[in-house]
Amino acid sequence: MIEVYSWPTPNGHKVHIMLEECGLPYRVIPVDISSGAQFEHKFLSISPNNKIPALIDPAGPDNKPISLFESGAILLYLAGKTGKFLPSDTAGKYEVLQWLMFQIGAVGPMLGQTHHFRIYAPEKIKYAIDRYSSEAQRLYKVMNTRLAGSTYLGGSHYSIADIAVFPWLRSWKNQGVELSDYPHLKGWFDEISARPAVLRGLGVMSEQHKPLTDEKARENLFGEKQYRRH
Amino acid sequence: MIEVYSWPTPNGHKVHIMLEECGLPYRVIPVDISSGAQFEHKFLSISPNNKIPALIDPAGPDNKPISLFESGAILLYLAGKTGKFLPSDTAGKYEVLQWLMFQIGAVGPMLGQTHHFRIYAPEKIKYAIDRYSSEAQRLYKVMNTRLAGSTYLGGSHYSIADIAVFPWLRSWKNQGVELSDYPHLKGWFDEISARPAVLRGLGVMSEQHKPLTDEKARENLFGEKQYRRH
Ligand SMILES: N[C@@H](CCC(=O)N[C@@H](CS)C(=O)NCC(=O)O)C(=O)O
Ligand SMILES: N[C@@H](CCC(=O)N[C@@H](CS)C(=O)NCC(=O)O)C(=O)O
Repeated sequence: MIEVYSWPTPNGHKVHIMLEECGLPYRVIPVDISSGAQFEHKFLSISPNNKIPALIDPAGPDNKPISLFESGAILLYLAGKTGKFLPSDTAGKYEVLQWLMFQIGAVGPMLGQTHHFRIYAPEKIKYAIDRYSSEAQRLYKVMNTRLAGSTYLGGSHYSIADIAVFPWLRSWKNQGVELSDYPHLKGWFDEISARPAVLRGLGVMSEQHKPLTDEKARENLFGEKQYRRH
Repeated sequence: MIEVYSWPTPNGHKVHIMLEECGLPYRVIPVDISSGAQFEHKFLSISPNNKIPALIDPAGPDNKPISLFESGAILLYLAGKTGKFLPSDTAGKYEVLQWLMFQIGAVGPMLGQTHHFRIYAPEKIKYAIDRYSSEAQRLYKVMNTRLAGSTYLGGSHYSIADIAVFPWLRSWKNQGVELSDYPHLKGWFDEISARPAVLRGLGVMSEQHKPLTDEKARENLFGEKQYRRH
């Protein structure tokens, strides 16, 4: 059975939602990133960048096991395995790929910085809070504009691009953004929020949720500990 | 002929190098991101996130034109078009994809923040400089460890994962990193630096290079202008 090394954060949720949407059986192995489990040797051998999610599929290509890190690669792999949520025609596939890359390269890392400086950083630094709150607003505007002219981010069908972006927008309140200022994005968000597979995916490990502002969690999660080790 | 909307920055260089490596004829359309050309309506219709690179291939899938943004999507497209720099077997392809995603999601955005706070930001903010310099060192260590056990980032062959990462490491001096502290990474870097196609790619628009600390450039590039517009 597919094994998902994960934690209930936006990048974990993407994969839980995709597995639920595809109806694939899977087993979750919690990697408590608030207590530093992502730096354990065994986990690093699957995910060398010390991040969740990672996935092992014992029935991979040619029926051999495959091990994967990076949620974007995992979503593409699962789409390839099931033939779902990624168009099969080349032009449609690249339309989705662009918006998937936009999530991986901008929505994820930049909203991650927004969360960091607005909530987790031990000092409140105005310059950085402004920088990343403005970037969040810019990104919401880009997506709202896209959705004014397209039903879904990757085109006319729900795809891995939507699955990748959606979990990041759930905490818009923490990003200095008012979701209802972006009506097309809000409509899209509300529709996806109501999908049964999405609700099931968001429920995965929901019992594990810990406040990330806890001091020890912060030390592990934002790498101070690891940097000292270097 | 393929048209590349670009500028001589790391994300532009990736695509210039890939086109040179593939031997594909192309025409460069400079988009001067230091003077705000990325916000022009015509460019936004190709690249809705106001970033270079973007690409138009008049001979795309089914011989119809295709327009693409996001360098990761462009590299995958060119690899698919030419059958080059991406293994054709599924397991090999996903090995490369993971490291490509690692560049798109971590190396690019995080080293971008390192550059910002170390060089371009109008204030010197110790907390942010430390945060992103440490993150740079962490990323270099991850890559060095990978290259201790693998000839290239994506496995035993030079691939789009190497092409994506390489241009970001050229400015290691600006990232608070000493490249020679990472001997496997340095060996890989030196080898790639010497490839004729890489040298040709890096030469594209080299005459356009402007100091990005110029005040007007900063205003455009880091979006203050655009944020005010919002
Ligand atoms: N680009 C990566 C990002 C993954 C990521 O940032 N994961 C976070 C949780 S949402 C993590 O594991 N952080 C722990 C750490 O960095 O030490 C992906 O999309 O998979
Ligand atoms: N994830 C994108 C990042 C592209 C990017 O950041 N491009 C920069 C130049 S290196 C840019 O165009 N910046 C202009 C702006 O953001 O206004 C990609 O890989 O294509």
